[in-house]
Amino acid sequence: MKNIHQITDKIKGLHSNLFANDFLLTWDKTEDELRQTLLVAEALKYMRDHNIATRCFDSGLAVSNFRDNSTRTRFSFASACNLLGLEVQDMDESKSQIAHGETVRETANMISFLTDIIGIRDDMFLGEGHTYMKEVGDALDDGFKNGVLPQRPGIVNLQCDIDHPTQSMADLMHLADYYGGLENLKGKKIAMTWAYSPSYGKPLSVPQGIIGLMTRFGMEVDLAYPEGYTLIPEVVELAGKNAAASGGKFRVVNSMEDAFANADIVYPKSWAPFAVMQRRTELLKNSDKEGLNALEQECLGNNARFKSWECTEEKMRLTKDGKALYMHCLPADISGVSCKEGEVQNSVFERYRIETYKEAGFKPYIIAAMIFNNKFKDAAAMLGRLCERNKRRVKG
Amino acid sequence: MKNIHQITDKIKGLHSNLFANDFLLTWDKTEDELRQTLLVAEALKYMRDHNIATRCFDSGLAVSNFRDNSTRTRFSFASACNLLGLEVQDMDESKSQIAHGETVRETANMISFLTDIIGIRDDMFLGEGHTYMKEVGDALDDGFKNGVLPQRPGIVNLQCDIDHPTQSMADLMHLADYYGGLENLKGKKIAMTWAYSPSYGKPLSVPQGIIGLMTRFGMEVDLAYPEGYTLIPEVVELAGKNAAASGGKFRVVNSMEDAFANADIVYPKSWAPFAVMQRRTELLKNSDKEGLNALEQECLGNNARFKSWECTEEKMRLTKDGKALYMHCLPADISGVSCKEGEVQNSVFERYRIETYKEAGFKPYIIAAMIFNNKFKDAAAMLGRLCERNKRRVKG
Amino acid sequence: MKNIHQITDKIKGLHSNLFANDFLLTWDKTEDELRQTLLVAEALKYMRDHNIATRCFDSGLAVSNFRDNSTRTRFSFASACNLLGLEVQDMDESKSQIAHGETVRETANMISFLTDIIGIRDDMFLGEGHTYMKEVGDALDDGFKNGVLPQRPGIVNLQCDIDHPTQSMADLMHLADYYGGLENLKGKKIAMTWAYSPSYGKPLSVPQGIIGLMTRFGMEVDLAYPEGYTLIPEVVELAGKNAAASGGKFRVVNSMEDAFANADIVYPKSWAPFAVMQRRTELLKNSDKEGLNALEQECLGNNARFKSWECTEEKMRLTKDGKALYMHCLPADISGVSCKEGEVQNSVFERYRIETYKEAGFKPYIIAAMIFNNKFKDAAAMLGRLCERNKRRVKG
Repeated sequence: MKNIHQITDKIKGLHSNLFANDFLLTWDKTEDELRQTLLVAEALKYMRDHNIATRCFDSGLAVSNFRDNSTRTRFSFASACNLLGLEVQDMDESKSQIAHGETVRETANMISFLTDIIGIRDDMFLGEGHTYMKEVGDALDDGFKNGVLPQRPGIVNLQCDIDHPTQSMADLMHLADYYGGLENLKGKKIAMTWAYSPSYGKPLSVPQGIIGLMTRFGMEVDLAYPEGYTLIPEVVELAGKNAAASGGKFRVVNSMEDAFANADIVYPKSWAPFAVMQRRTELLKNSDKEGLNALEQECLGNNARFKSWECTEEKMRLTKDGKALYMHCLPADISGVSCKEGEVQNSVFERYRIETYKEAGFKPYIIAAMIFNNKFKDAAAMLGRLCERNKRRVKG
Repeated sequence: MKNIHQITDKIKGLHSNLFANDFLLTWDKTEDELRQTLLVAEALKYMRDHNIATRCFDSGLAVSNFRDNSTRTRFSFASACNLLGLEVQDMDESKSQIAHGETVRETANMISFLTDIIGIRDDMFLGEGHTYMKEVGDALDDGFKNGVLPQRPGIVNLQCDIDHPTQSMADLMHLADYYGGLENLKGKKIAMTWAYSPSYGKPLSVPQGIIGLMTRFGMEVDLAYPEGYTLIPEVVELAGKNAAASGGKFRVVNSMEDAFANADIVYPKSWAPFAVMQRRTELLKNSDKEGLNALEQECLGNNARFKSWECTEEKMRLTKDGKALYMHCLPADISGVSCKEGEVQNSVFERYRIETYKEAGFKPYIIAAMIFNNKFKDAAAMLGRLCERNKRRVKG
Repeated sequence: MKNIHQITDKIKGLHSNLFANDFLLTWDKTEDELRQTLLVAEALKYMRDHNIATRCFDSGLAVSNFRDNSTRTRFSFASACNLLGLEVQDMDESKSQIAHGETVRETANMISFLTDIIGIRDDMFLGEGHTYMKEVGDALDDGFKNGVLPQRPGIVNLQCDIDHPTQSMADLMHLADYYGGLENLKGKKIAMTWAYSPSYGKPLSVPQGIIGLMTRFGMEVDLAYPEGYTLIPEVVELAGKNAAASGGKFRVVNSMEDAFANADIVYPKSWAPFAVMQRRTELLKNSDKEGLNALEQECLGNNARFKSWECTEEKMRLTKDGKALYMHCLPADISGVSCKEGEVQNSVFERYRIETYKEAGFKPYIIAAMIFNNKFKDAAAMLGRLCERNKRRVKG
């Protein structure tokens, strides 16, 4: 248990205000709060790996609301909740009466009478996902204040239009693990770059989440994309400020090669241009199928001009010692495997495949840590008590 | 724990036969049994509010079978089961082999080998929901008697064509809470009245449940609707008998204003006329889409003649001191919010919004109490033991 | 607890290697391993029946992946997992990103970071279900070996194209229970015979599972079908070898009457001919709707030539003393009940209905035993500890 004491000691040295606060955007959190999230995740992972029971709730409910398809995040959320003793009840809007004109304010309360945590994925409509989560949060505040709810359920953002904090934090945990500590990330160069994909309309939240978070820890972040494939301007601006504050660097370039040059880490991943997402959001709202088809054709045509934006062996040779760590949120569009031409050459992906799986494997613990910090005021003490009771997860 | 002892003392004074009996209709239960349901719900709520663990099952299964959409009841059932330590397994008929011509008798047994409780919503077809629940119950009796099932799972009616006991009992609990005790409801006037809605085909189970239950406690119940919007005749007759027996009153009037006059409580809510529901049931059985569309048009046209049946500020002024408590099972059709013209004026709803949320918040505890009483013979003793073991729901 | 000690003593005498090994085909398991599965199932059933808590996991996840509809097996799996303390998370492929071209290898890892067990049903495509399960298993081995997964989740075959081990083992447990012990099955004659059904395309896994398993225990197994309704040749060959090795008999006949003659047990059940399933698999792969319709018509026409393959009272009189035990995996096509003409006459089914329900009731315990043996190296010791801790499942 030496390991756990080291972790809890570190947590005690931090100034955090995570208790009873939603986790919606990493840039709403202080550096100490991000550190605490990583440390709690590490502790929970250690305990799970050593068969120490981490159940904190004798009974309790977690609501998931996936407004878009999901495998990884759905299972990560289910795993995280189960790890802490919460049962997941999915809010399947197609089976609910929400179509009856029910307000967000009302639904938020109706699903929360005995609910400890709510996880929401809402990434389809630009300008809406984050707004929706805030609206749910306000409704819960209102319900709690007025005695409708015996507790204020916490909210965890499982991906919105702006940020994807469970992904970027899992990525950060992976980097800290890979390089032997958060402090070793200082000065490391990461290339967050657009890559070609035969599909279109992929959300902006991953690249935004990465540039918004990695600039907090003194890293040198290059954001690269073909002209026009911009992200939400406010987030790009924020990344620059973060870098300045943390002693890191932030650059926008229009060349994959430039970004890869001497990079320690590369993150090649497709997304749709901000302007396209804005048009798409309008078309989706109006259920304009013809318009959506036309936009898709236009965009796929446009994308096709940038097929050279592929993470190839050749480009990998441009990176630091030719050995940059390849990252991806998965599933990747692998050339010749999941598509004809895609984001990454098969041999590159294959070499880093296990690393990308490990990267994904941190997500359940990150989510569990977000829940844990939201529900327990003194996280270090609570972790200590869980260890002391010395209960095994799997009996035997 | 003084509070709990007061509650368990009251339970000890009651003569109940809830153990191992399904909860299908409130009028199948004695007054003592209804009181016990409220008292157990109160105790469980108290314990949840004071972080006392209420898990009674180390493992156990609850099956939900929603034959119609649901948000509130689905989450209430999930919350109730979780509170007691039962895991919910949803019986999604679209994913089952029921279409293969399997009998109710067989399915009922197949889902019940290790099942402690079954919750069913079946409110679409007049003359069917309640019948279906009885059929499931008979099949379970048969399976238990013949050694197929090691236990007889209890059934909780989550809304049928006749009654909606989890709703009406939650409503009753809300009234008892609002007025400081069940005994204070004696002589209070409640107006259960039809209200205009731009939709049609809403079930009759809520108004039927309300007039069938509130007449048991000496209340003065007015049922109001435009000519033709009748309920199932047997339930109306029953309400009259209940009122006579309990020292209350029961009237049917054809004016919202009459019903509101001097009312302590108003419950304005749309429903479809009994005769329409009968025709609709036939059309649904025959999957007669044209017939259903024609009926819908006819009914919406008919409904439109009664747009004045709206719960307005003006009508609220007719109530006792102009301050009647507004109730609704939610979601309400709020004029100018969820529809152009609806059941209730926005300012009225807004003034009582928090109260309607609280009303809904009693449902998980009512359902939990129904399960608890079905599974534990000596409810008072069991509640006592749960308190004595002094286990916290959320560790800390 | 005498009963449990008798069971654990028997287990101690067996040589098994079930720990950390998937349960895909009964013929991959030794006779001792099959015996242990039955014994653990019996112990768990005994404990459940005597209200002894069998929760072995303080928290833990079980993933179900149903690639075909299911009621019985879905609920059996949910019951089994719940009995041991595992929460089921369903892998609903329609809600996942699998359509995005994700590989089996990747998905298998993504759903397994904190997963203890995976149950898979994949019976639609001949030559694919078993292969898919092996592929998932290989991916999990790879993930575990490479440090992606902290544990190797076990796999339980919930029905594939080749075998249906949870069904055949539940059937075997039913027979052992009915005849007072596995040893009493020696020399008993079982007729696994095709029967007419108005539907088509039913999987081969049940008859294959039955002839592959019952030949292991010295039984006299007759497989009967109309000419052309063959099973996978390799499985038929295997059944012959099993019978030879166990001192039993195995015959293929083309007459229901021949098979019924002097039989102790009859298992009349429809299936599609092997050759048809092969053609169907091709058509399904190509989404060839016209071809599928044509094949269905052809087959239904062909089936109709064999309406006389019905389990009638007359045929039952051919069996041992006219009193053979009738078995079915359910739901059965009952003439005059679930279809006009079907697999079994109503009066025959009705006489054995309760027995078929009991037969189905063993499945949850068989699945639980498969999971238990996969996760606990010393099953006997673990069962002993569960009894010693003397915890009740339902408090009271």
